[in-house]
Amino acid sequence: MSSFEIFDKNYKTRVSSSFTRQPFMDLIGAELVDVQPGYCEIQLPYKKELSQQHGYFHGGVIGTIADNCGGYAAYSLLPEGTSILTVEYKINLVAPGNGERLIGRAKVIKPGRTLMISSTEIFVVSNGVEKLCATSLMTLMAMHGKSDQPESTKA
Amino acid sequence: MSSFEIFDKNYKTRVSSSFTRQPFMDLIGAELVDVQPGYCEIQLPYKKELSQQHGYFHGGVIGTIADNCGGYAAYSLLPEGTSILTVEYKINLVAPGNGERLIGRAKVIKPGRTLMISSTEIFVVSNGVEKLCATSLMTLMAMHGKSDQPESTKA
Amino acid sequence: MSSFEIFDKNYKTRVSSSFTRQPFMDLIGAELVDVQPGYCEIQLPYKKELSQQHGYFHGGVIGTIADNCGGYAAYSLLPEGTSILTVEYKINLVAPGNGERLIGRAKVIKPGRTLMISSTEIFVVSNGVEKLCATSLMTLMAMHGKSDQPESTKA
Amino acid sequence: MSSFEIFDKNYKTRVSSSFTRQPFMDLIGAELVDVQPGYCEIQLPYKKELSQQHGYFHGGVIGTIADNCGGYAAYSLLPEGTSILTVEYKINLVAPGNGERLIGRAKVIKPGRTLMISSTEIFVVSNGVEKLCATSLMTLMAMHGKSDQPESTKA
Repeated sequence: MSSFEIFDKNYKTRVSSSFTRQPFMDLIGAELVDVQPGYCEIQLPYKKELSQQHGYFHGGVIGTIADNCGGYAAYSLLPEGTSILTVEYKINLVAPGNGERLIGRAKVIKPGRTLMISSTEIFVVSNGVEKLCATSLMTLMAMHGKSDQPESTKA
Repeated sequence: MSSFEIFDKNYKTRVSSSFTRQPFMDLIGAELVDVQPGYCEIQLPYKKELSQQHGYFHGGVIGTIADNCGGYAAYSLLPEGTSILTVEYKINLVAPGNGERLIGRAKVIKPGRTLMISSTEIFVVSNGVEKLCATSLMTLMAMHGKSDQPESTKA
Repeated sequence: MSSFEIFDKNYKTRVSSSFTRQPFMDLIGAELVDVQPGYCEIQLPYKKELSQQHGYFHGGVIGTIADNCGGYAAYSLLPEGTSILTVEYKINLVAPGNGERLIGRAKVIKPGRTLMISSTEIFVVSNGVEKLCATSLMTLMAMHGKSDQPESTKA
Repeated sequence: MSSFEIFDKNYKTRVSSSFTRQPFMDLIGAELVDVQPGYCEIQLPYKKELSQQHGYFHGGVIGTIADNCGGYAAYSLLPEGTSILTVEYKINLVAPGNGERLIGRAKVIKPGRTLMISSTEIFVVSNGVEKLCATSLMTLMAMHGKSDQPESTKA
């Protein structure tokens, strides 16, 4: 995990700041739990508003955690002043999202200058026991020279 | 579009009832706009709570619409008393979700007794003009003999 | 189909020349049948050497046709002196490859300067009747300034 | 790796026999190297006939190894008299197939009664050094009561 080249020693602050600026993370109640070079963990406590017709975590919520987790794992490796774009992802839902919490853990499989590949596992925690709920493979593109921050907030 | 065999003539009511029972659709404000045999359209008006750090629709929101659209397109073809499960999907995000509304349109590519394949296109509407935002390919599994409704609501 | 901007009016020759320089196409017996801007059709007659344990076209062969078809559809839109790279693809096999011929037809869904998205349908022809066999979604990267031809053959 | 339930203690013979009955494996020269419960390794020595225009392993060949590897990892866990079907797979090509040998290693992520999910890594060996070349995620379906062997060979 520490084998990646670090271009920006402030990567933790940069990831955390970007995460905080996503209103959708606030709406669903997601928490950025851990960021390491090429690694990211996000957790999401259950609430009824996040569920589908059987009361489980909605597949779109599970996909959202996979998307963000994989994206920030890659973003942690980018130099400052660079933003990141999700090109595509594929997700397999292997068990119902039946539990009190989702945990997403992503790692970068291939860091490239332009393209990065991340792999994310999503676990559902039921009565304190983690169970694999989904697995995802994702392609991201680094946008060099394009800040993650909107113009207006750079003072 | 009308070439599919219809097993349940009440498919519209069944899809609509399932959609309504998803609290997550209510949280984000999604609207079920059209259901035909093997076809589904869902729309989602923009609100700031659905956005990522640049103010666009979050990728997880786009994936959610793709997931539900593709799922209900397939669900429309199932017989009564059957529920549906997302096995997996892949989504390519081809343009930023920058606009006042998302429109998802899904059609079933291959209806099977157990497995169904759907294809979904997501458009973002900006100043009234539709633009392709994402495209998705999805595998679903029919759960025969397993109702979409929770036991307690069947009276 | 004619809505794409054409950067190289010799695109047909360029695609055909690249196809011919792939020894694997020769090994399996694939034929480049049609190239239009953002479109490509490849056909492959059946022979026993291409089959799996039930005598049908092997899934790897079907994937190969999808990969090449989608790649050359995108390559047709690139300027001269540019090569193309498959970033990733996803393929759904929807019917057994049981027939006398495979036909792959790909079109570009999103042409970008760096990334291109193609969609490919693979049909299997049995007693002259085409049937959808597989559908694929693919991401490609343009390598500007990197010729498709090896150095030694440029004289 | 040994945590999987084994339904057929003759799984090695069964996988090996199925692999041998695939003429396409013979055409490309693939070798079944190792089978464990929920695990499969396939190797493929380089020959010019397997290459694309730059002389590297063709993407379709890499996809073929991923497809077969993931499929046989899942097939190893099935009971006798059952065959397996590739539903879909996604593959990311992360480095050129530039080397003297491909090695595919697949493991089952989720064994289900009907559906199974496999993950495959493909390495390219160059001057004896392994390098990650591709990574794949795959969905398979068990066909219970449908033998992998053609009728005519069951005597």
